[in-house]
Amino acid sequence: MNKKTLKATAKVKIRFNEVDSLRIVWHGHYLKYFEEGREAFGGAYGLNYLEIYEKQGLVMPVISSSCQYKSPLRYGDTAMVEVEYIDSEASKVKFQYKIFRESDNQLVALGETEQVFLNENGELQLNVPDFLLEWKKRHGLLK
Amino acid sequence: MNKKTLKATAKVKIRFNEVDSLRIVWHGHYLKYFEEGREAFGGAYGLNYLEIYEKQGLVMPVISSSCQYKSPLRYGDTAMVEVEYIDSEASKVKFQYKIFRESDNQLVALGETEQVFLNENGELQLNVPDFLLEWKKRHGLLK
Amino acid sequence: MNKKTLKATAKVKIRFNEVDSLRIVWHGHYLKYFEEGREAFGGAYGLNYLEIYEKQGLVMPVISSSCQYKSPLRYGDTAMVEVEYIDSEASKVKFQYKIFRESDNQLVALGETEQVFLNENGELQLNVPDFLLEWKKRHGLLK
Amino acid sequence: MNKKTLKATAKVKIRFNEVDSLRIVWHGHYLKYFEEGREAFGGAYGLNYLEIYEKQGLVMPVISSSCQYKSPLRYGDTAMVEVEYIDSEASKVKFQYKIFRESDNQLVALGETEQVFLNENGELQLNVPDFLLEWKKRHGLLK
Repeated sequence: MNKKTLKATAKVKIRFNEVDSLRIVWHGHYLKYFEEGREAFGGAYGLNYLEIYEKQGLVMPVISSSCQYKSPLRYGDTAMVEVEYIDSEASKVKFQYKIFRESDNQLVALGETEQVFLNENGELQLNVPDFLLEWKKRHGLLK
Repeated sequence: MNKKTLKATAKVKIRFNEVDSLRIVWHGHYLKYFEEGREAFGGAYGLNYLEIYEKQGLVMPVISSSCQYKSPLRYGDTAMVEVEYIDSEASKVKFQYKIFRESDNQLVALGETEQVFLNENGELQLNVPDFLLEWKKRHGLLK
Repeated sequence: MNKKTLKATAKVKIRFNEVDSLRIVWHGHYLKYFEEGREAFGGAYGLNYLEIYEKQGLVMPVISSSCQYKSPLRYGDTAMVEVEYIDSEASKVKFQYKIFRESDNQLVALGETEQVFLNENGELQLNVPDFLLEWKKRHGLLK
Repeated sequence: MNKKTLKATAKVKIRFNEVDSLRIVWHGHYLKYFEEGREAFGGAYGLNYLEIYEKQGLVMPVISSSCQYKSPLRYGDTAMVEVEYIDSEASKVKFQYKIFRESDNQLVALGETEQVFLNENGELQLNVPDFLLEWKKRHGLLK
């Protein structure tokens, strides 16, 4: 049986100041859109960074990111940032992203990020934190 | 007798990603250049934000900023950010900025910022902190 | 008789990457929120920068900006950016801004920007462009 | 015989506004540092984006980027961005990046970007542009 797919979408209006002199969104800004996607995901599935910090004492820095740019975004465009949680057994949180231009549904970018867990002393958590195991169970990713 | 003038200059190479679709630096980025100016000033005159936080437990949020844009900066330009400390008796730190284009010495922007002191509970310090009084004496602004 | 007041409001969710190490929005980002306010205003009253450029051949650079920071915005907050058109006879477009925190309606910042008109050769338009006069008539600011 | 290695290094002082509420540089800013690296490379080896645009009518959008974050950068740090040109026969420009913290020479990040060539109509250039072939010859990458 297939695992459940956990997905959310953020709608991001392109800001004038995100567009460069080629009149397209500067490539570095896509990581902001990915972050908006993670926020939307967190809101939809109850994975809240502030709460994780306050209740678990854990922060979740990004340890890798990648992006493939397929088609430009321009000022006036709205980006639909689709984010999917990619489950694994590692003590990591991995997301994949697809960005579409809202007006014509064109694929604009693909991407991926990985996050780890650090405690307040900055120590890497090698075991999956309990709160994440419970979260996985709650969302049908773990029995 | 005139008070001493405290000035420093930061040299800032314009980044491609700071230029907008009009092919000029987006106006909001000038506040970053002002910040680089403050850093240069802090380096030149021993006013270090990390140290102030660590030793005095004080942070210095900006409470006002303004900028007049006189001439555009473009990709490839280098900005010379001249920052001058404007002394007053208030429990504030005020700077004025002049930005020049390095290539032709053209005035590009004028600006001003004000900062206050908050302690670790976020309380506004109405009296000038001792460390600042001592700093002023050290630099000839106070007897 | 009083002139008509032209106002619009943009709702801006604070991005994680806009918050600095003091855990408050870095002061320079407010100019982005003002820009979102101008966009919302343009949408509400038919003042579209792309259209002005394409139909009139005019760009509208910001020539001055100011901001007073009254209360911090934090990650998780939503800002309500209220923008009001300040009419004048000059060949300029002036806006005033009030930013409120959505959760408690607290005033967060006040600001102002001024824009001028340049043609495609970068020449300042000293006379109010016809399209703006017509726009003012349409919105009850001019007879 | 080994091909020549083309490398350059940019020195980047971390800006206060690039540090997030975890007191480390927000991961998305590394793409700016990579860009500074490319600039330094362009300066060292005569690969100038403005010139390529003006003389060849070509722009070079980034089509992929990736970054692995090994150790955090903090406010006060200086990053040494080492950029290496990765030669290939494709009509692309590929760079690899290593970022080191200047104070202790610690590896901070690894990354990669790829750029393609578009003409003024936005058409992808499938053949390596002549100016790049000449540039390669000049730098010992091609006979």
